[in-house]
Amino acid sequence: MRIALAQINYHIGNFDDNLSKMEAAVAKAIADKADLVVFAELAVCGYPPRDFLEFADFIERCQASVKRLEVLSADIGIIVGSPSVNPKIEGKNLHNSAYFLSGGKTIGVAHKALLPNYDIFDEYRYFEPNTVFECIVFKGKKIALTVCEDLWDIDEDDKLYVISPMQELAKQQPDLMINIAASPFDYEHAAERERVLRKNASTYKLPLLYVNHVGAQTELIFDGGSVFVGADGEVNSRMKFFEEDFAVFDTEKVIDEDNSPPKVGGVTAGGGDTSLALEDNSIKLIHDALLLGIKDYFKKLGFTKAILGLSGGIDSAVTLVLAARALGANNVLSVMLPSEFSTGHSVSDSVELCQNLKSEVYNIPIEKPFNSFREVLAPYFQDLPFNVAEENMQARSRAVILMALSNKFGYILLNTSNKSEAAVGYGTLYGDMCGGISVLGDLYKTQVYELARYINKNGEVIPENIITKAPSAELRPNQKDSDSLPDYDILDKVLYQYIEKRQGPRELIAMGFDEALVARVLKLVNMNEYKRHQTPPILRVSAKAFGQGRRLPIVGKYLS
Amino acid sequence: MRIALAQINYHIGNFDDNLSKMEAAVAKAIADKADLVVFAELAVCGYPPRDFLEFADFIERCQASVKRLEVLSADIGIIVGSPSVNPKIEGKNLHNSAYFLSGGKTIGVAHKALLPNYDIFDEYRYFEPNTVFECIVFKGKKIALTVCEDLWDIDEDDKLYVISPMQELAKQQPDLMINIAASPFDYEHAAERERVLRKNASTYKLPLLYVNHVGAQTELIFDGGSVFVGADGEVNSRMKFFEEDFAVFDTEKVIDEDNSPPKVGGVTAGGGDTSLALEDNSIKLIHDALLLGIKDYFKKLGFTKAILGLSGGIDSAVTLVLAARALGANNVLSVMLPSEFSTGHSVSDSVELCQNLKSEVYNIPIEKPFNSFREVLAPYFQDLPFNVAEENMQARSRAVILMALSNKFGYILLNTSNKSEAAVGYGTLYGDMCGGISVLGDLYKTQVYELARYINKNGEVIPENIITKAPSAELRPNQKDSDSLPDYDILDKVLYQYIEKRQGPRELIAMGFDEALVARVLKLVNMNEYKRHQTPPILRVSAKAFGQGRRLPIVGKYLS
Repeated sequence: MRIALAQINYHIGNFDDNLSKMEAAVAKAIADKADLVVFAELAVCGYPPRDFLEFADFIERCQASVKRLEVLSADIGIIVGSPSVNPKIEGKNLHNSAYFLSGGKTIGVAHKALLPNYDIFDEYRYFEPNTVFECIVFKGKKIALTVCEDLWDIDEDDKLYVISPMQELAKQQPDLMINIAASPFDYEHAAERERVLRKNASTYKLPLLYVNHVGAQTELIFDGGSVFVGADGEVNSRMKFFEEDFAVFDTEKVIDEDNSPPKVGGVTAGGGDTSLALEDNSIKLIHDALLLGIKDYFKKLGFTKAILGLSGGIDSAVTLVLAARALGANNVLSVMLPSEFSTGHSVSDSVELCQNLKSEVYNIPIEKPFNSFREVLAPYFQDLPFNVAEENMQARSRAVILMALSNKFGYILLNTSNKSEAAVGYGTLYGDMCGGISVLGDLYKTQVYELARYINKNGEVIPENIITKAPSAELRPNQKDSDSLPDYDILDKVLYQYIEKRQGPRELIAMGFDEALVARVLKLVNMNEYKRHQTPPILRVSAKAFGQGRRLPIVGKYLS
Repeated sequence: MRIALAQINYHIGNFDDNLSKMEAAVAKAIADKADLVVFAELAVCGYPPRDFLEFADFIERCQASVKRLEVLSADIGIIVGSPSVNPKIEGKNLHNSAYFLSGGKTIGVAHKALLPNYDIFDEYRYFEPNTVFECIVFKGKKIALTVCEDLWDIDEDDKLYVISPMQELAKQQPDLMINIAASPFDYEHAAERERVLRKNASTYKLPLLYVNHVGAQTELIFDGGSVFVGADGEVNSRMKFFEEDFAVFDTEKVIDEDNSPPKVGGVTAGGGDTSLALEDNSIKLIHDALLLGIKDYFKKLGFTKAILGLSGGIDSAVTLVLAARALGANNVLSVMLPSEFSTGHSVSDSVELCQNLKSEVYNIPIEKPFNSFREVLAPYFQDLPFNVAEENMQARSRAVILMALSNKFGYILLNTSNKSEAAVGYGTLYGDMCGGISVLGDLYKTQVYELARYINKNGEVIPENIITKAPSAELRPNQKDSDSLPDYDILDKVLYQYIEKRQGPRELIAMGFDEALVARVLKLVNMNEYKRHQTPPILRVSAKAFGQGRRLPIVGKYLS
């Protein structure tokens, strides 16, 4: 059978655009003499639609898209993901379904049985799990059609669910597996995903066609990488990462009509060691993912221009390079906002970086606003010593200026915070924690350095001095991050184990981290939940990012 | 049987405090010759513990509290809620359980079967649902022990779940129902909760003892109102609202050893009409809930003093009164921050309010910082007209001053935004949208007026002029809210139907709202999701508050 996989960048709730992309893919599949064209999970509405699913009107528009595709299925089979209405009184109102359309009508519907409800996933909030499994016969072949997570219970030692959809479907002796997915990127996930898919194919001794989303939806980045895996568990063909793609495969004879498959990269799933598990080409994947994340955030919101504060430090430098690559250097405005505590090289390094990028930069000293705040507050502050209040006033004065330029000229402010400082609260709320989207907020400081080196690998883009100087917030004389924080080399490892790996105090101490350091870091992380609650969405590149995938109480008293 | 219900204000993750409160209640129950003392759902760790449940250390501490209570159960039965570990490989790692302790050991454990995963609830994120049901025998009585949601499938026409725990338990002919809960307040919920409990008692013809949490955990407010319902479905005794309480009931003969039960108030569940469904004593409930919400936010975070910006408008006036009542007038600092666009009465009304409350107020004009921003931006803004950029600069200058005082003296900034403006984005991010907690963010503007009138019902606290003047942000000359927004009377009704009742455009138009108005309001709500993403937690008093209970995409294209 000739099966086309359409790897598409959908836009949540943009029914017209999503449908016209699918219509074009159907036409191409017909032209390419495909028997069947496959779209991703919840393709009609984009993923994740979140609480829009609670609106009857939204569901009706999803159904209207399916109806339109049904009409187009006169001469070709179409598989498409859409919410469907659960006709039973018992259970949630919806299913997360894969529609099989053929001959102008729906010939089968497979509902998702395993509903991910961890990390960024909330599927049990909306959907009733499937409990009845039936293969769908198409052109004489019996197809085991499943939705995403339905294949993720393949490891015997870690069963998150009590039923196994493929085990049920396998009893009916299918000829072929098709899985439609919405599987978001993290820098360890592409390799893990292929391992799971290959294990399914080899376990059930069936070829497997898998189609994923590509594109970013606010913080979530979908990397594509749809595949055709042979019954031997080997990848026959792999589609592009971070780009839309279309290919037709012959399930008996492999025909990839596009160019040869790119490498998935030898990324291995994180082990139990104390490293950050950043290996091989992870940093390239992160780089490419962030570009797509920035690009789609702007494109899907209808904006073109970004603004950011350029401090002379590494975070804003890397953010600027990524923004310039994603949006075009002439669409990014950098603003230096020096204070009396800024060092001379902060300005000169920033200017050099902008020259390298051919990108515009303003220089707006904050001395006057800062002093005017000090003046109006003097009757109340009297001669109390300069402290965090004055430090934050500087960061907030910068934010007011950046947001004023944003409001006046229609720039979106890019947040330049990293994950290490977000974790321990080393940032000013309503100051440097502002922005429409956080570019580096899911990268620890040491990972930001790796990304800077990756950016410079073919020649200096970021001036070397920005990479080698000691990190500083420059909010008081001669300030260094290391005055307040443990060395990032150690801090980041503790944070990674606590945040990504959910290792508690006892486990961390057993790994060899200093007990007092562990207590201090965990307390900082927990007591700063209130700050993270008010930060911009963060482009997610790790398995556990701050944001919707990590939900902790603000008013709590655990390890704090 | 003599059964004590302990309605306690727990603190998430504060194992020592939670345990010592329970130990005191056990001692009191023994002194009162009770056979059994009942604590609430997840009492050992507080509710909701959220992702702390993913830490092995956290679960071990929960288990240690259960073990300690086991020891105390030598002479009395104890029912207590705690997470428990699911021993099976299949399914989630935890159950949400009710432990029955007696004679120094665990004599039964009932796991929760119906896991709420809507609105603010995320229980399927952590817990495996129960599928095996067994009554627990204690002192010759067969007890049907369930956890919260397990009783909420009593209405035949709206079954959210496919199994019914009480139907299963009823087959074993129990003598008594006990339900331990964590049921948060909203102004329609207390009445609905009692209806459900009474319907359970009358359906199964069994007496029902129900114990709830009381107290606030960041945005979630638990109102208590634990009850003993007779087998006839009538409430025999009701415990206090918004306060800790303890009572012993004889399941054969009603003995409420505390004072007589307070009224639940004739709040009825919202109908399908176009009103805001604010009836009867809802506004009193909201008032009391907000006081508890403020009080617990400060107490549980270890703060005592609040600061807020006092504009002369109704929102900040009401917020000040509530804060003064919750924290003491001498613990609240108001700051007037007038600009050249502020009217004279804004200052005089604010001063009068603070005099009424005997609460301190500062007057810090923002002219100097505002002008300094205009000055440094002048080379870039040139002679572009005054617009939203300058308006927001004023709001942000105010925020810098308030946060500086907060940072210098340890005040928590109270946010004074209301739900109407949060809905349509009529507020300045990093300006008036700042704060540690939002007091009125779940009240529409018209509800804020009702609350003001309620506050003034026994004499003028809020100067009448604040209540009667036309609302204005005072960010440009002669500005009025009505320049930019529909009348709040209409706007609030559309918002209520869209947000609380999930009515889409077609339904709203069918209700009689103007089509263009509906399109405009829905678009405003959807396109301002990015602002709400960065706002403080909002004290939740309605069935659908902005915050964790309402999850929508930022980058979407639906009705926007």
